[in-house]
Amino acid sequence: MIKVAIMGYGTVGSGVYEVFRTNKTSIDKKVGQELRVQYVLDLREFPGDPVMDVLKHDFEDILNDDEVKIVAEVMGGLHPAYEFTRRCLEAGKSVCTSNKELVAEHGAELIQIAKDHQVNYLFEASVGGGIPIIRPLNSSLTADVIVEISGILNGTTNYMLTKMSREGLNYDDVLKEAQAKGYAELHPEADVEGWDACRKIAILTSLASGNQVDFKDIYTEGITKVTAEDFAYAKKAGCAIKLLAVSKKQGDTYCVMVAPAFVRKENPLYMVNDVFNAVCVEGNMLGASMFYGSGAGKLPTASAVAGDMVDAARHLGKIITTFWNPQKLELAPVGEMTHRFFVRMKSDAKDAKVFGDVEMIDAKIKGEIGFMTPVMSEDAFARKAKNLDIISMIRVAG
Amino acid sequence: MIKVAIMGYGTVGSGVYEVFRTNKTSIDKKVGQELRVQYVLDLREFPGDPVMDVLKHDFEDILNDDEVKIVAEVMGGLHPAYEFTRRCLEAGKSVCTSNKELVAEHGAELIQIAKDHQVNYLFEASVGGGIPIIRPLNSSLTADVIVEISGILNGTTNYMLTKMSREGLNYDDVLKEAQAKGYAELHPEADVEGWDACRKIAILTSLASGNQVDFKDIYTEGITKVTAEDFAYAKKAGCAIKLLAVSKKQGDTYCVMVAPAFVRKENPLYMVNDVFNAVCVEGNMLGASMFYGSGAGKLPTASAVAGDMVDAARHLGKIITTFWNPQKLELAPVGEMTHRFFVRMKSDAKDAKVFGDVEMIDAKIKGEIGFMTPVMSEDAFARKAKNLDIISMIRVAG
Repeated sequence: MIKVAIMGYGTVGSGVYEVFRTNKTSIDKKVGQELRVQYVLDLREFPGDPVMDVLKHDFEDILNDDEVKIVAEVMGGLHPAYEFTRRCLEAGKSVCTSNKELVAEHGAELIQIAKDHQVNYLFEASVGGGIPIIRPLNSSLTADVIVEISGILNGTTNYMLTKMSREGLNYDDVLKEAQAKGYAELHPEADVEGWDACRKIAILTSLASGNQVDFKDIYTEGITKVTAEDFAYAKKAGCAIKLLAVSKKQGDTYCVMVAPAFVRKENPLYMVNDVFNAVCVEGNMLGASMFYGSGAGKLPTASAVAGDMVDAARHLGKIITTFWNPQKLELAPVGEMTHRFFVRMKSDAKDAKVFGDVEMIDAKIKGEIGFMTPVMSEDAFARKAKNLDIISMIRVAG
Repeated sequence: MIKVAIMGYGTVGSGVYEVFRTNKTSIDKKVGQELRVQYVLDLREFPGDPVMDVLKHDFEDILNDDEVKIVAEVMGGLHPAYEFTRRCLEAGKSVCTSNKELVAEHGAELIQIAKDHQVNYLFEASVGGGIPIIRPLNSSLTADVIVEISGILNGTTNYMLTKMSREGLNYDDVLKEAQAKGYAELHPEADVEGWDACRKIAILTSLASGNQVDFKDIYTEGITKVTAEDFAYAKKAGCAIKLLAVSKKQGDTYCVMVAPAFVRKENPLYMVNDVFNAVCVEGNMLGASMFYGSGAGKLPTASAVAGDMVDAARHLGKIITTFWNPQKLELAPVGEMTHRFFVRMKSDAKDAKVFGDVEMIDAKIKGEIGFMTPVMSEDAFARKAKNLDIISMIRVAG
């Protein structure tokens, strides 16, 4: 029997507890012995909830029980998650987490601490919720040089953009509705400003490169400026608008950006709607592959955390190699990133020519023009766009 | 430095060699030391090819070199692949393979032999070419009970069906073209009769259940009877026709089938075209996820084999747990599988009523009717269809 603990009984934590209760037989069979949830840590009380039998309020109870070999950290936030994780690892307990903030900020360091103590720090749930993407990147696509990663990594914004597209609604109305339904938070900045997606692409780029990507270095633009008019043009052009997190190999490093983008029908990301997430990975040998699934939500995320706990249980005393060292990766300047740009201008068609051979899009909106530029760098675009009366600009995925 | 060998210098084998030559720097970095291709085994000569420097004709040269720790078996076929694999494992060498025939037939046994000798038998490339699906099933989705797997697992037939759909061509014409282009073999039975897909879904079902699924037990129907007229109806119904391999949990076992199916636009498999493959996995906690990519081809498959070799190198002396034991899984009778059925009959609309509340489809083809039945079991369908003049029947994916 292996004892495990869950730190945090919020959405994900209660999901992990539910996964262990529902799938106990099959989980124990796969581990080869019983995996028993010995403690759940939370400051609150949950009267009437079966978790009361195992609920603890004091972290030290978990830390000091040497029989607890695996801990799920599903509290979220940096503190005290960082301190708790560190102390668990140092005490010889593997830690499995869904905490993307902590992984993005301290991933390499915590992996090293785990290694030093012959335990594992696993974080499949930190990106893409229930979609297995960390393990494939870390263990399957290792013979490839990763040329590009592009993903829809945030369920809230994808839900909102899908809704805007289908119903022709404006951003503010969709946000209100998403908040009413619980899909968006009252303070939705982490989602709608792209910060959540930013942390996730930082983690994926760290794994692709093997070095530490600082998420603060990543150019990040949210969806707050996307309008119903932009969608009218997108539809006319046969495109969807998605919040894309993109990481492209450039020389020895990567160029990374989070921003809304026009996505064509031929792109597999086009059909990723509602709260679904997907990650496309292109390797220099493999070509393109895509991983698609529920990017968030209680049970899918909990399933990924619990899956890591099963893996940790099967590898007690053995280190699961993660290729991510603490040396910082200097990202390539975002100005060098190249793509087409969709542009709306208060002007007439001839002014579009400053961008070269553009493709006009007629969405029947008066007093403006809309078009796609040829492929050019961000810097080149900025130079040409200077002094022009641009209403909106959205990048076009390749 | 770790020495490795490649057995077989055909399409996949030469691809593996190429992957190691192209990505040497990044592979060695990920392993933490040099991974050197010491031998390539093939009976043939390859004058002028750089492989000549390491080419061997005698298996014993590889077997008896104790410094060779990892071997890629990319010869294909059951013999001598089985004997070579077994002897390598027994000699303490990990084996990585793309050989689906061998994995489907002897997977559980070879995994056990590997375990007994503290080495690994890895087979990511055996299903879905370059798509990571084995490792996610085996290591990521372990907290879930797998409820359903459905996949497009054969590139040749998907290419042919895509072509039939786009160009309105008939089966025979498309086959000829695919053969001329090298996408289909001169003896195409393994692909077009569904045997290849059958072995792959047997492997996936073995991993989902943890027991040995005998591919000979799986009901398998190929694409040879799919016609241009069927596609006319499919289009009218907003569907694609795909060769689907489906495995559905039923009680303690699975019900498995390979057959052409109508796939609706809403299904993520709808947009999987040409030689691409995709696998949808539904877990009882995770919900639906999909893995998409190049299902075949030299470099994608080679990338998966080489990725396994990297993983084997990182885990020398450590067993990567695979949950697949030799006990045979008795599959549920295929007659109990339920879905809708698309039917063409030489008859008029009233005769369709024997199937209940059907949905007529008008593809403007004279002298026949086409419709979709309500959901019913295979057995119930067979009973009702008896004595009717049915032109064709294709299942409808759920």
